[in-house]
Amino acid sequence: MEENKNGTLVSFRPDIKLMDCTLRDGGLVNNFAFTDEFVTDLYRTNIRSGVDYMEFGYKASKDIFDVNAFGKWKFCDEEAIRSIVGNNESDLKISVMADVGRTDYKRDILERKDSVIDMVRVATYIHQIPTAIAMIEDAKSKGYEVTVNIMAVSKVNDKNLNDGLNLLTESGADVIYLVDSFGAFYPEQIRSLTDLYLNAAAKSGKKIGIHAHNNQQLAFANTIEALSLGASMVDGTVSGMGRGAGNCFIESLLGFLRNPKYNLIPMMKFVAAYIPQLKAEGNVWGYDIPYLLTGILNSHPSSAIQFIKDGRTDYTAFYQELLDLE
Amino acid sequence: MEENKNGTLVSFRPDIKLMDCTLRDGGLVNNFAFTDEFVTDLYRTNIRSGVDYMEFGYKASKDIFDVNAFGKWKFCDEEAIRSIVGNNESDLKISVMADVGRTDYKRDILERKDSVIDMVRVATYIHQIPTAIAMIEDAKSKGYEVTVNIMAVSKVNDKNLNDGLNLLTESGADVIYLVDSFGAFYPEQIRSLTDLYLNAAAKSGKKIGIHAHNNQQLAFANTIEALSLGASMVDGTVSGMGRGAGNCFIESLLGFLRNPKYNLIPMMKFVAAYIPQLKAEGNVWGYDIPYLLTGILNSHPSSAIQFIKDGRTDYTAFYQELLDLE
Repeated sequence: MEENKNGTLVSFRPDIKLMDCTLRDGGLVNNFAFTDEFVTDLYRTNIRSGVDYMEFGYKASKDIFDVNAFGKWKFCDEEAIRSIVGNNESDLKISVMADVGRTDYKRDILERKDSVIDMVRVATYIHQIPTAIAMIEDAKSKGYEVTVNIMAVSKVNDKNLNDGLNLLTESGADVIYLVDSFGAFYPEQIRSLTDLYLNAAAKSGKKIGIHAHNNQQLAFANTIEALSLGASMVDGTVSGMGRGAGNCFIESLLGFLRNPKYNLIPMMKFVAAYIPQLKAEGNVWGYDIPYLLTGILNSHPSSAIQFIKDGRTDYTAFYQELLDLE
Repeated sequence: MEENKNGTLVSFRPDIKLMDCTLRDGGLVNNFAFTDEFVTDLYRTNIRSGVDYMEFGYKASKDIFDVNAFGKWKFCDEEAIRSIVGNNESDLKISVMADVGRTDYKRDILERKDSVIDMVRVATYIHQIPTAIAMIEDAKSKGYEVTVNIMAVSKVNDKNLNDGLNLLTESGADVIYLVDSFGAFYPEQIRSLTDLYLNAAAKSGKKIGIHAHNNQQLAFANTIEALSLGASMVDGTVSGMGRGAGNCFIESLLGFLRNPKYNLIPMMKFVAAYIPQLKAEGNVWGYDIPYLLTGILNSHPSSAIQFIKDGRTDYTAFYQELLDLE
C-alpha cells in the first residue's frame, strides 16, 4: 500500500524545504497591516527555527492597487524588506509572490543582484499560464529561484490541468506547486494529484510544492500526504494564519519534520507572543462551519468570510445560498 | 496506489455506521453536566441527521464514583436515558460505554429486553483484555450489540497488539475499534493499523471502527483514511467536543459521507444553538499547541489540559516537562 512512499516517519529527507508564508497569506486577513516589530520577530524566529524560506508578501502593482489602502507587504518594495533584514546575512531565503495580471513584473522585480529577494513565486490561474510563463522566464533570467503556483486546481478539469502542467514543465520554473485554494481536496485526491505533478515534473527535473487550506481541517494531513509521496517544498503559516480557514500550521510541520535543522521552540515562543494578541484585535481566521461548507462545495471562501464578518450563524440559509451559486 | 480502497468519493457504502459520542467524550470536558434540554435536542438532532448510534455516556460503577461529583451521564441509569428517549421509537440506536475495571457490569448492565440501550462499548487497555472479554461475553449474552475499544494503542508494541487482536477476534464482539487516544498517529500509521485490524477481524466476520483525536488536527483525516480502507463504524462528536483536543467533528463526517440518509442541516442548527454558549460558559476543548505537543510525544493529554486550565502559555517549559516524563 505504501510502495510509493518517499522517506519514513523517523528519517528525514534533506530535499524538503519549508516556506513560511504568514505575511503573504496571513496578510489577506489583516490587509497586510503587520507591525515592523512583528515582521522583525518573525524573521528572527524563522532563522532560529531553521525555516528555509520566508515569504514577505506580494509584489503587487501600484498602478492597480492603492498604496494607501494596504499595508506595505502587499507591495514588498526592496527598501521595505531591507529595513527588516538588511542584507539578510542568514541562511533564510526570502520570497515574494507575483500574481499574474496584478504585477508589473518587468518594472517591479529587480535584477537579483540588486535585490535581497531570493525567490519569486508566480501565482496563476489555469487560463493565465502563457502569461505566467512570460513572468517565470523574466524572473529566471533576472537570476531568481522561481516557483509557479497553479491556483484553484479543484476547479480545473483533467485535460486542462495536464496541458497546463506540460507547458510549465518546459518553463524555467524550479518548483511547481499543487495548491488547494478552496480546501476542497481529500487526502486521496491529493495523493493522485501529487503523483500527477511529480510525473510531469520528473521529465524536467523540477520539484513539487504543496500549499493547503484548512477548510475541512485537512491542511496538515494533505500536506504530509503530498510530502510522503515526494513533494519537497511545503508551505505553512504561524498558527495557520491565512485567508478564511487558513493554512497548514507551521508549528505542526516543525513538529513533524525530522531534519535536525528544524526547531519548534522559537516558533512556539513567537505564537505565545503574538497570536493571542492578533486574535484579540479582531483578526479572524481558522476552521469554522462556513469554511467547511465552501470546502465541501469547492467554492471560493469569500462568501464565508463575509458571513462570519456579518456575525451570522444561520448556517442552513448560507448553505442554500451557496447551492444557488453552484 | 489506491488498490486497497473501499468505496469512492461519490458513491456510498451502506455498511458504514455513524456514532455520535458527544455526551460520552464531551462529558469528559464538562464532567457530564449537560442540561436535559441539550441532551433532548441532541437526541432529536441525531435522529433528523440520520446518525446511526448515539452514545449517552458511561456505565460507571457508583461504588467507585461519587454520584454527587458527576453529571448523570457518567452512570447512564436506565431511567435517566428513558427520561429523554422514552422507549426510543426511532431508528437511532443507543449506546453506552463500559470501562474495564470501572463498571459493575453484572449488576448495572441489564438484560437487553429490560433496557432501551442497544449497544455496549467495552473500553479496555491492552493488559485488561481478559477482563474485557468477560464483559463482552456478559453483554453479548444479555442480548446487546457489543464493541471493544482498545485504548492507547499508540503505546502498545506490535506483538502485544497482535496477541490482543487474536484474543478479541475469538470473542463475541461485533466491532473492534481502532482508537487513537493520544492523537499521536499520522495517516500512514492509521492505514497500516486499519489493515492490521481488518485482517484480524476478517477471520471472524467482525467490523472495524475508528475513534480519532484531534491533537495534530488529523482526527478527520485519520478517520476518512480508515473508512476508505474498509473500517465501517465511525465516531464523531458535535464540533469535536471531547477531552483535550477533542474528536473528529461529526459535522465533517456528515458533510463527507454520501449515504442519502445523512443530513448535515439539523446538526448545523444544533451547533449554532448550543456550541457558542457551551464555549462561553468556559468549556474548553479543541486543537491547541499543548495538545500538539502531547500528540507528537504520544502522551496522555491530562498535563496539557492542566496547562491550559492554569492559563499558562510557556510552551517551551511545558515541552521540557513533557520530555522529562518520556
